[in-house]
Amino acid sequence: MQSPIQEYLEHLHAEVLKLRDGAPYPVHPGDREPDPGAFGICLATVDGYVYSVGAADQEFSIQSISKPFTYGLALEEHGLEVVDAKVDVEPSGDPFNEISLAPGSGRPANAMINAGALAVVSMIKGSGGKSAIKRIVDRYSDFAGRELTSSKAVFDVEMRHSDRNHALAYLLSSFGIIEEGPTRALELYLRQCAVQVTCRDLALMAATMANGGMNPRTGDQVLDLENVERVLSVMMTSGMYDDAGSWVSSVGMPAKSGVGGGTLAVLPGQAGLAVFSPPLDDHGNSIRGVETCRRLSRDMEMHFVRSARTGRSAVRATFAISELPSRIRRTEPEAEVLERFDDRCRIIEVNGDLLFAGTESLVRAVSELDEHVELVVLDLRRVDEVGAVALQMLGGVERRLREADRQLVLVERIGSAAASAFEPEADVPSFHSRGEAVEHCENRLLARYGGSAREPDRVEVVDSPVLASLEPEERTRLVGLMERRTYSDGEVIRRVGQRFGGIHFIVCGQVSNFATDPFGQRARLNTLSAGMTFGELALGTEERQETTDKAEGEVELMVLTPEAIAELEEADPQAALRLWHALTRDAYLLVDRYLRETLVRLTY
Amino acid sequence: MQSPIQEYLEHLHAEVLKLRDGAPYPVHPGDREPDPGAFGICLATVDGYVYSVGAADQEFSIQSISKPFTYGLALEEHGLEVVDAKVDVEPSGDPFNEISLAPGSGRPANAMINAGALAVVSMIKGSGGKSAIKRIVDRYSDFAGRELTSSKAVFDVEMRHSDRNHALAYLLSSFGIIEEGPTRALELYLRQCAVQVTCRDLALMAATMANGGMNPRTGDQVLDLENVERVLSVMMTSGMYDDAGSWVSSVGMPAKSGVGGGTLAVLPGQAGLAVFSPPLDDHGNSIRGVETCRRLSRDMEMHFVRSARTGRSAVRATFAISELPSRIRRTEPEAEVLERFDDRCRIIEVNGDLLFAGTESLVRAVSELDEHVELVVLDLRRVDEVGAVALQMLGGVERRLREADRQLVLVERIGSAAASAFEPEADVPSFHSRGEAVEHCENRLLARYGGSAREPDRVEVVDSPVLASLEPEERTRLVGLMERRTYSDGEVIRRVGQRFGGIHFIVCGQVSNFATDPFGQRARLNTLSAGMTFGELALGTEERQETTDKAEGEVELMVLTPEAIAELEEADPQAALRLWHALTRDAYLLVDRYLRETLVRLTY
Repeated sequence: MQSPIQEYLEHLHAEVLKLRDGAPYPVHPGDREPDPGAFGICLATVDGYVYSVGAADQEFSIQSISKPFTYGLALEEHGLEVVDAKVDVEPSGDPFNEISLAPGSGRPANAMINAGALAVVSMIKGSGGKSAIKRIVDRYSDFAGRELTSSKAVFDVEMRHSDRNHALAYLLSSFGIIEEGPTRALELYLRQCAVQVTCRDLALMAATMANGGMNPRTGDQVLDLENVERVLSVMMTSGMYDDAGSWVSSVGMPAKSGVGGGTLAVLPGQAGLAVFSPPLDDHGNSIRGVETCRRLSRDMEMHFVRSARTGRSAVRATFAISELPSRIRRTEPEAEVLERFDDRCRIIEVNGDLLFAGTESLVRAVSELDEHVELVVLDLRRVDEVGAVALQMLGGVERRLREADRQLVLVERIGSAAASAFEPEADVPSFHSRGEAVEHCENRLLARYGGSAREPDRVEVVDSPVLASLEPEERTRLVGLMERRTYSDGEVIRRVGQRFGGIHFIVCGQVSNFATDPFGQRARLNTLSAGMTFGELALGTEERQETTDKAEGEVELMVLTPEAIAELEEADPQAALRLWHALTRDAYLLVDRYLRETLVRLTY
Repeated sequence: MQSPIQEYLEHLHAEVLKLRDGAPYPVHPGDREPDPGAFGICLATVDGYVYSVGAADQEFSIQSISKPFTYGLALEEHGLEVVDAKVDVEPSGDPFNEISLAPGSGRPANAMINAGALAVVSMIKGSGGKSAIKRIVDRYSDFAGRELTSSKAVFDVEMRHSDRNHALAYLLSSFGIIEEGPTRALELYLRQCAVQVTCRDLALMAATMANGGMNPRTGDQVLDLENVERVLSVMMTSGMYDDAGSWVSSVGMPAKSGVGGGTLAVLPGQAGLAVFSPPLDDHGNSIRGVETCRRLSRDMEMHFVRSARTGRSAVRATFAISELPSRIRRTEPEAEVLERFDDRCRIIEVNGDLLFAGTESLVRAVSELDEHVELVVLDLRRVDEVGAVALQMLGGVERRLREADRQLVLVERIGSAAASAFEPEADVPSFHSRGEAVEHCENRLLARYGGSAREPDRVEVVDSPVLASLEPEERTRLVGLMERRTYSDGEVIRRVGQRFGGIHFIVCGQVSNFATDPFGQRARLNTLSAGMTFGELALGTEERQETTDKAEGEVELMVLTPEAIAELEEADPQAALRLWHALTRDAYLLVDRYLRETLVRLTY
């Protein structure tokens, strides 16, 4: 199905194409007359998907859109303070080639006007065997995710039309803002402006900015977030050769235009937008570029005020462990302990971004828990971004819980950064599934409050809860029909697809059942311990085994084989009936338990 | 537990309190000397929770922080165009009482400087029996969520020190920007500046802006989002008597300060911040107010570039219905049909905000579905915000699906706006639980592909799948032991807590089981139809009924009572054994099914 977003962009393209005003930038090599009808729109998401309409792959000169990228490079190399000493961050309101220097210091108003860009580019030096221009072009290439080049032909013709910029460079040099000579800065500047890009390139460059400086296709961190923040701030007020306030009000996205016909806009965290259309207005902005940005901002809600309406709350739900018990089947006395101390543990499920709002709601949820909740499980698996504020606050949460002898437990994805939040003395168990975390908490509660209810190491078949409704002599007789089997750690007891192999009573040790989930991954369904039974599941599924059952540690079993069952039914039907009653009841206990869990799942 | 956010704010308060520079605004009634040491910080979230430190409840004059709120009122009453004709949206860079009017037109640069505020307030008229000032103060009160008042004493003293503003008002009047006389505008302006607020009030006023214009405590939509967008845009570049670019770079939040010592900042979608501290810098900004904003922006990542990093994707997961089947127990032939045509339906689970990025990922997920997926279920229950872009795109998705003879199905919360997205001719079934939506899809698939597998209206006990393993004459004999019972629509068949009442075979009609979820809500667990059994669950739970079972429509049952079972076991133990085998197998079929579902839940 064609995407409605693609459809919208095509509609927008057709509408905006109707604008016929303006004229292309007149300075270009003789054989590269810009086509006023060429018009491309590309929208790249922060996961690197690109929507495109029209002239998406036609090359043109990047021109002034180079400025924010070189500014980012200078900030990275020299730091904010050094760069700020040379170039301010104020909107000038002036057109792009005005001379807008502070009286006295000669400091250009910002890095988006030519004077500022000349000052910035003069700070880039050759390094590691690479010339300054090579380093600049390489940086742009990293943003675009492909190798870009600067056009010699474009540079040559620009050089012949650079009187005003030459004058600016000399003036800046006179104030000591440009070092190493005005001509070097001018040449570097004109070479960076002559880099050839496509609309698609610009969209990916913008998406890299939107993605906090990481190219979503290559995964390279091209610029760090702190510098991205600065570059986009300056673009917000000074990126368009236009009135700053009007751009913020009507578009509300950091943007930059170039006389080559390109316009680039960034929706932080969400998307990069690029437009290519050569006809310019009197300010030097692409007419179709500006109109496309205005319409997209309005129609797609890309204005910074609207796009920032992030979720009300990162906290999805708070559970008790009784609502989502672990896969460990507990004995009745254990289950009673867990029920009695159920209020000592809470699971908080979080999703979305842990930036300010998400972190605040998470921290508030933990802070408002009753003080007798001693185990606080944060399920962070559905969290997307973990900001610095989240790490700082998680550290505080852990410390405060620890000081009150309470424990923080995490469920997180592999590779999560959350662990870096904690002080060295913190002890925060971390798991990759909620089941494991709940198992940990149940074990902690049983260790602390279980007393005599603790799971016995060994349960003889005669004491099995499954058979509790049978008379002692009947149980003893059943044991006489069983086979004793032992397994060592990791050994497979029953394999998927095997026929019904009888009822297995665990005398000692633990047995886990595994099945394949819908995504082909093996997942643990249950862990059973002494006193429990397994193997009956094959009764339900055409008498085939649905799970693979493996020993966890040394395991001792007593097995009532199908042959033994048949023998009993033949010899003493009334005893067999009582056995089946017991087994059916046990099966329905399981059904009941799963239904209870299903209820929780249905609710959310 | 004390919140680490509270702790952070207290630490910040202690740090910033150390700043001792600046002096309070000297104009005030004789008995209201401002206390330079008074210092409060309040942070209000978009759900109305307020963190506060220090002088949170001390009243002071709102002064210039009134400007954005009156600007919003004027925009609402007169529209953007009329207001823009009188006041521009450009940063002036000038201090608050400078005369900053456009040459020729006399249009003030923006509504945050005094000239602009005078022009704006002159547009507010009395209406509906309320004076202009009453309407203004009422509006502020709606933002704050409590009744505010303007101080006569403050107004009187300000009036005696208003030469410069008086001059401004006359000047604006001479350009025709102010109507109805300069003195009226000046008096209105000074009265609005004399409104008494606390730091807590300002935080809630800011949170109302952050919340898209809806007061999070009262639920009132005080200003519509379009005007909030405009007001915050102007505050972003012109709210502080400071350099616009520097504020955007270092704080990156729309803000407004007043000489009364207040500072208000808005983090769109997330929070409102207010600071109260009277000592001012040379620009007229509260020194501690500015420093608190800078630090909070950095420490809590409130800068617009950082705070906007919303989740990568709104699409959480895509499921097949076989992974999360409905609560309808299907017959074996039906189950086979559903399995065979499982690829015709997909459930897409979405969460977070459907603004641009979220909508894009949702639309992309639907667009990339294989064309033979004819039923597309969007589970929107976990969606927070549904923006206009989402409504527009959902409309497009529905239309395209419909044109290809495919169907969109929604799962949404009660009161969701999604339905307003669709064209009148759209037919989009909407449900409040995923189970109902899946049931709908299963029924559609069975209607289309089921053929002879369609669920029969009537299944006699002798044909019940549960008893398939018994010989025909055994089944006939069982029927002879049963009681026939009928129920009408909505009638309760079995109630929670009743003792085991036998095995109920459904001959005709549907029966639903309900249980109480952990939140005390009644939820449907299952719907059973002809050929299925129920009531055995009580076997598992100490022989007590766990669910309430109700007739859906006319229902005919055959019941094998506990007495009949006992009679059979006594008279023919081998037949009873085969019955129990059948029942146990049926129970384990259920266990198997729940385990499969649990696997899906474990995975996510």
